[in-house]
Amino acid sequence: MKTENTKKKKLVLAYSGGLDTSYCAMYLSKELGYEVHAVSVNTGGFSEDELEDIKKRALELGAHSYNAIDAVQSFYEKVVKYLIFGNVLRNNTYPLSVSAERIVQAMEISAYARKIGAHAIAHGSTGAGNDQVRFDMIFQIASPEIEIITPIRDQQLSREEEITYLRENGVDYSWEKAKYSINKGLWGTSVGGAETLTSGKGLPDEAFPSPLKKEKPEDVTLTFDRGELKAINGQAGDPVDNIRKLEAMASAYAIGRDIHVGDTIIGIKGRVGFEAAAPLIILKAHHLLEKHTLSKWQQFQKEQLGNFYGMLLHEGNYLDEVMRNIEAFLKDTQRHVSGEVFVTLHPYRFTLNGIRSDFDLMAAKFGSYGEMNRAWTAEDAKGFIKILSNPGKIANQINTTHD
Amino acid sequence: MKTENTKKKKLVLAYSGGLDTSYCAMYLSKELGYEVHAVSVNTGGFSEDELEDIKKRALELGAHSYNAIDAVQSFYEKVVKYLIFGNVLRNNTYPLSVSAERIVQAMEISAYARKIGAHAIAHGSTGAGNDQVRFDMIFQIASPEIEIITPIRDQQLSREEEITYLRENGVDYSWEKAKYSINKGLWGTSVGGAETLTSGKGLPDEAFPSPLKKEKPEDVTLTFDRGELKAINGQAGDPVDNIRKLEAMASAYAIGRDIHVGDTIIGIKGRVGFEAAAPLIILKAHHLLEKHTLSKWQQFQKEQLGNFYGMLLHEGNYLDEVMRNIEAFLKDTQRHVSGEVFVTLHPYRFTLNGIRSDFDLMAAKFGSYGEMNRAWTAEDAKGFIKILSNPGKIANQINTTHD
Amino acid sequence: MKTENTKKKKLVLAYSGGLDTSYCAMYLSKELGYEVHAVSVNTGGFSEDELEDIKKRALELGAHSYNAIDAVQSFYEKVVKYLIFGNVLRNNTYPLSVSAERIVQAMEISAYARKIGAHAIAHGSTGAGNDQVRFDMIFQIASPEIEIITPIRDQQLSREEEITYLRENGVDYSWEKAKYSINKGLWGTSVGGAETLTSGKGLPDEAFPSPLKKEKPEDVTLTFDRGELKAINGQAGDPVDNIRKLEAMASAYAIGRDIHVGDTIIGIKGRVGFEAAAPLIILKAHHLLEKHTLSKWQQFQKEQLGNFYGMLLHEGNYLDEVMRNIEAFLKDTQRHVSGEVFVTLHPYRFTLNGIRSDFDLMAAKFGSYGEMNRAWTAEDAKGFIKILSNPGKIANQINTTHD
Amino acid sequence: MKTENTKKKKLVLAYSGGLDTSYCAMYLSKELGYEVHAVSVNTGGFSEDELEDIKKRALELGAHSYNAIDAVQSFYEKVVKYLIFGNVLRNNTYPLSVSAERIVQAMEISAYARKIGAHAIAHGSTGAGNDQVRFDMIFQIASPEIEIITPIRDQQLSREEEITYLRENGVDYSWEKAKYSINKGLWGTSVGGAETLTSGKGLPDEAFPSPLKKEKPEDVTLTFDRGELKAINGQAGDPVDNIRKLEAMASAYAIGRDIHVGDTIIGIKGRVGFEAAAPLIILKAHHLLEKHTLSKWQQFQKEQLGNFYGMLLHEGNYLDEVMRNIEAFLKDTQRHVSGEVFVTLHPYRFTLNGIRSDFDLMAAKFGSYGEMNRAWTAEDAKGFIKILSNPGKIANQINTTHD
Repeated sequence: MKTENTKKKKLVLAYSGGLDTSYCAMYLSKELGYEVHAVSVNTGGFSEDELEDIKKRALELGAHSYNAIDAVQSFYEKVVKYLIFGNVLRNNTYPLSVSAERIVQAMEISAYARKIGAHAIAHGSTGAGNDQVRFDMIFQIASPEIEIITPIRDQQLSREEEITYLRENGVDYSWEKAKYSINKGLWGTSVGGAETLTSGKGLPDEAFPSPLKKEKPEDVTLTFDRGELKAINGQAGDPVDNIRKLEAMASAYAIGRDIHVGDTIIGIKGRVGFEAAAPLIILKAHHLLEKHTLSKWQQFQKEQLGNFYGMLLHEGNYLDEVMRNIEAFLKDTQRHVSGEVFVTLHPYRFTLNGIRSDFDLMAAKFGSYGEMNRAWTAEDAKGFIKILSNPGKIANQINTTHD
Repeated sequence: MKTENTKKKKLVLAYSGGLDTSYCAMYLSKELGYEVHAVSVNTGGFSEDELEDIKKRALELGAHSYNAIDAVQSFYEKVVKYLIFGNVLRNNTYPLSVSAERIVQAMEISAYARKIGAHAIAHGSTGAGNDQVRFDMIFQIASPEIEIITPIRDQQLSREEEITYLRENGVDYSWEKAKYSINKGLWGTSVGGAETLTSGKGLPDEAFPSPLKKEKPEDVTLTFDRGELKAINGQAGDPVDNIRKLEAMASAYAIGRDIHVGDTIIGIKGRVGFEAAAPLIILKAHHLLEKHTLSKWQQFQKEQLGNFYGMLLHEGNYLDEVMRNIEAFLKDTQRHVSGEVFVTLHPYRFTLNGIRSDFDLMAAKFGSYGEMNRAWTAEDAKGFIKILSNPGKIANQINTTHD
Repeated sequence: MKTENTKKKKLVLAYSGGLDTSYCAMYLSKELGYEVHAVSVNTGGFSEDELEDIKKRALELGAHSYNAIDAVQSFYEKVVKYLIFGNVLRNNTYPLSVSAERIVQAMEISAYARKIGAHAIAHGSTGAGNDQVRFDMIFQIASPEIEIITPIRDQQLSREEEITYLRENGVDYSWEKAKYSINKGLWGTSVGGAETLTSGKGLPDEAFPSPLKKEKPEDVTLTFDRGELKAINGQAGDPVDNIRKLEAMASAYAIGRDIHVGDTIIGIKGRVGFEAAAPLIILKAHHLLEKHTLSKWQQFQKEQLGNFYGMLLHEGNYLDEVMRNIEAFLKDTQRHVSGEVFVTLHPYRFTLNGIRSDFDLMAAKFGSYGEMNRAWTAEDAKGFIKILSNPGKIANQINTTHD
Repeated sequence: MKTENTKKKKLVLAYSGGLDTSYCAMYLSKELGYEVHAVSVNTGGFSEDELEDIKKRALELGAHSYNAIDAVQSFYEKVVKYLIFGNVLRNNTYPLSVSAERIVQAMEISAYARKIGAHAIAHGSTGAGNDQVRFDMIFQIASPEIEIITPIRDQQLSREEEITYLRENGVDYSWEKAKYSINKGLWGTSVGGAETLTSGKGLPDEAFPSPLKKEKPEDVTLTFDRGELKAINGQAGDPVDNIRKLEAMASAYAIGRDIHVGDTIIGIKGRVGFEAAAPLIILKAHHLLEKHTLSKWQQFQKEQLGNFYGMLLHEGNYLDEVMRNIEAFLKDTQRHVSGEVFVTLHPYRFTLNGIRSDFDLMAAKFGSYGEMNRAWTAEDAKGFIKILSNPGKIANQINTTHD
């Protein structure tokens, strides 16, 4: 036995505990004879109990080893932080919850595979979605010497066929298909269902994992330091912990539900529901703080670069060097994005009441909008507008003569 | 007397019926000896009764004539339509309600002044805000031969001084200062108050002109034809009428309240509250329809150009030729933006449930996102991703060798 | 025989007369039994004599029919015109000579195939370049029901193998490989050689098809009307004829030689030489005229959209709707781009001496740069700058206090 | 006397030795009674001898002190470096020679004025140009407590009036007006003349300070390290020295002459000639190196941000925080922009022959453009293009059905 084992090729399987990757675990071990090292990368969606269960299953299914990599902090540092800096909402709606996680999961798996000298990496994505692109691209770029194996994409089995195979091999878990497929992580939860396969229907209340629990409005103060969420209601904490804390508070109000309609990497339109209470509140609060602390042109360029960053991240293009360059830009813009944002939570919505910041450009003794002041005179204003009108004046004079 | 009158120089006064322009009407007639032609340009904020009152006052204050120009249709055709095509929300928040109106008001007044052969145009803006820039710029460009006179900006009188002057000249209206200054138009209502002069406070419920009147959610179907709102709940109507109809329905839910923090043209930060139920619903519904009917790159460029269009409009730069060029672009993008959008109104918020469109790119028989299909194979997908990875693969190979 | 013939499936072959497509013509007829309809699409690179030769060969090689489609005018109207409007130089260097032609060739072939009811389209591109993408994409989009066949890509034969196959089938043309591969069209000539496969070497003089013939500088006046080249030295003519006329004049000076280094669609870097005398002179002359006739913001947006248009065109994405939208934008920008541009041709270079235009915004009586004038006073200028400084002044005041 | 002196208010005068600032030196001392501290900020245009002369004159004209600040290194570090990183050519033509210098001069003068506790700063700009804006803006932002005095702008004297005043006060230098006004600095020399006040005429050869001296082509190798010019022909040196060295070599070929037509900050069009041999060669060589070492998206974003950076710099907006953010971006993009660029100098022009770089993304063993290779198969390419065609295929299917 031992001798045989040593001859087996090592394979790292991105394992989530679901039907597809369970099939892979068994199929890759039994049929293809790999030494399967199952790995889950936790980007905020798994509890410790769930990970224990997942581990148990992986080993039962034939995996040689199982490892749960905690990547929450790295997910925040490598991706989430910049999504906040850039106020990134894909198509003005979606905080890129799943897209962003996949990137970090792929990088962790690639690094792990290299570390243990794996010959292959396997994942359970189909050939019809975005995840296959995000996984494959990062694997090919970061560990090009390692083969990629994708049984689900290649074999296109039905759920029933997978279940039958597992049962025939002695594994008889209950694989009831949930009415709504849920994908949870630090930066939001995606929700798919029959409705999201159509264009015309919204998701019903019961589709969302966090039901409305509170009705009475509640005030929350978010403290940002250079763009990062450093305290909630005055209590300092690590940004990751603060995101979780805020999520617990705000999801009780069923805040942050919506449906994203977008262009997939493979060129078709896709639709997915999500709930993301903390991400939406943080993004909007952060954006408000920036409106008070950044110049017009900083906001202009941030909007363009933030959108672009979100597009490339969504498309799995995280490793393009331009992403590092934009991160350098975004980080540099946050030097004065510090202060408190005052938020009120209501059922299904929240309001931003205002901010306080040492760097509030509105708080200047300089003059208030609409109130006359000593910083400039009526004559200054008239001179300003006169010269501002020059290009239009000239163009109008010239063009109306000759048109 | 008559002889004297004929010698008077004609002046067109942008007249709103408020204290500032009332002062101007009297001051310009009595002190400066102009033949004052008072004009109100209605961009949707005045009822017929209000206009009757305004007319009465203008003439009492010494105006030689009064004219109410109905510019709602022209406001829609020249500006609002493109704000919808471009999904324009300044700073991702503000539908540019007031900014957009001022432009059309200035153009109407300039044209009127030219028509009656006026020697001067007067307006009541101060030297501390955006409106002076919007008015002055358009007057200087469109009618450079006409002098601009701005008594309020030049004299910097207090309210009390203005009231005293009017009273001394026999006009004793009650000029109680409202707690909140309200500016109403087709595309939204701005709300200013003590709170908006600070950074930290939101506006209280009573500051908004439209109180919550309905609690029970209500479904509304909006029908767009090439980007224009052509029917509500299946009833066809003119876009302007539809905006008003939707506003009546949705403002009963107190939808569309928020505070805009922005960069004024004169370089300081400003803050203004607003309610804009119909504009926000229309913009978001229109945007959703576009997500289903436009290509990724159309959306990408529309986002950039829409933002830019909003910035220049906000800054009074409407007459720059680039605005016409962007309008040509935006109009061209709307060829397939037709269909219904399903909306539900709730207290203080609304949800977009979905759409139906002949041009829905998601409705293709082509294949559904996440569901395997016949349009491409697993091998196609693998080839796609392999070649998509080329740049990253090469860069990683080269740079990790030499870094 | 006839009976047999009627059973053959029709195939349209994009035929250039070179070795690869000659191999295809014979292979597709003889081995695969297609009724081959060979087609050349002339976008400006073929003379009538050359087309006669090509026809003769095609039929000798087994083609059932041969057709030369003259697409020069359509190439100009659909693509070249907008490249001029947009001042498009890929990577600031390359007028997109070949990329642009391929698009129009593919569209013509797709339309022809549909017209004759073809079952398949074949082209001779390899699997290593851009052209396969441009051809395949347009065929798949414009005629998705027609199969695409690419023997060269699929079989990866060497030149020798192709020549052998042809010789064994009775065709014994001389297929000497030219030292430099040349691709000529209306909008420039590309030049590939051993040097362009390296990064370090330029092309020698003899690589370029147009040798230096003239040394004495010569003045040329180009007349544009709404962005189109309507006369040369005062002689009116069709834009296509004018491009050819200018090319004849300017290529005698060996103008417009350079090397383009760019990102191919398949993700690797590519390098190609070119000579494009007329395109470069026209683009630069047109751009200069725009500097005189367009506003700052028109130029700003044109630069961004022109670059983007060039990128998508280069990548074969011509049929994306955004391209039509950008064309609408570009066309609209050209309303005042009319006038003369004064050019001098020198050996290997040209100078732009100046322009004359009814719409020259510099020609205003308004005031000259650097010369004091009556349009504004020193006080106006001071007021202008004072208010322009507001944002910086406030930011500096706030940030230096708290940093 | 001494007592009197101590009562005088200190004023710092930006002094160039020309007629305008000479008038200012005397007028501000004699008429306005300031203690004038004349300062020249050398950004590369003055030799030591010239500065000696300037000093002598300043003191003769009544200045209390004179100081020549050497800002060449700071000019490079603060501005020129980023213009190279960003490949910045305003309107695709002008290296921003003068604009860029003014910024650094203003900052040095502002800092000097603060250091000596000056009450006022004076400069000699007129009210008709860009320089007044650049100077005033930076003074107002960086030292808002210091008054700005501009006798030339305020008094609008003719040259004759200034000369007469000086002569009457005992100063009788010869102030012959040069036919061409020249402004020399590290990053190029601007040339103004009668021709540049028109739209139609170019500058004659004699207008340019560097005549053609060499005819025989000469090869030069430029070595960049992270975007900075670190060696010429293999000889290492400081970037500033290398720029000067290259300028000496290349100006002998009369390279880099052109005319810039642009939009001034005050809204009118302006035209200025320039010669900038080294800047143009460096910018183009650097850009070529980037084409080999940066990803497509890096180049895309660099082009947009570089243009924007140039626009704001040109308009004196250097102190906007967005400029620091863009600098952080640009710096980050240069990590692999290292290697040699091979250039040949010819009379009036230069050619870029190629590059060599450890980070050359074209040099990969990976595969050559147009040559078939092992990195991907024909099937991969077909899958790639098939999926790339999805959006167009779907849109065409949907839209042609319903249009």
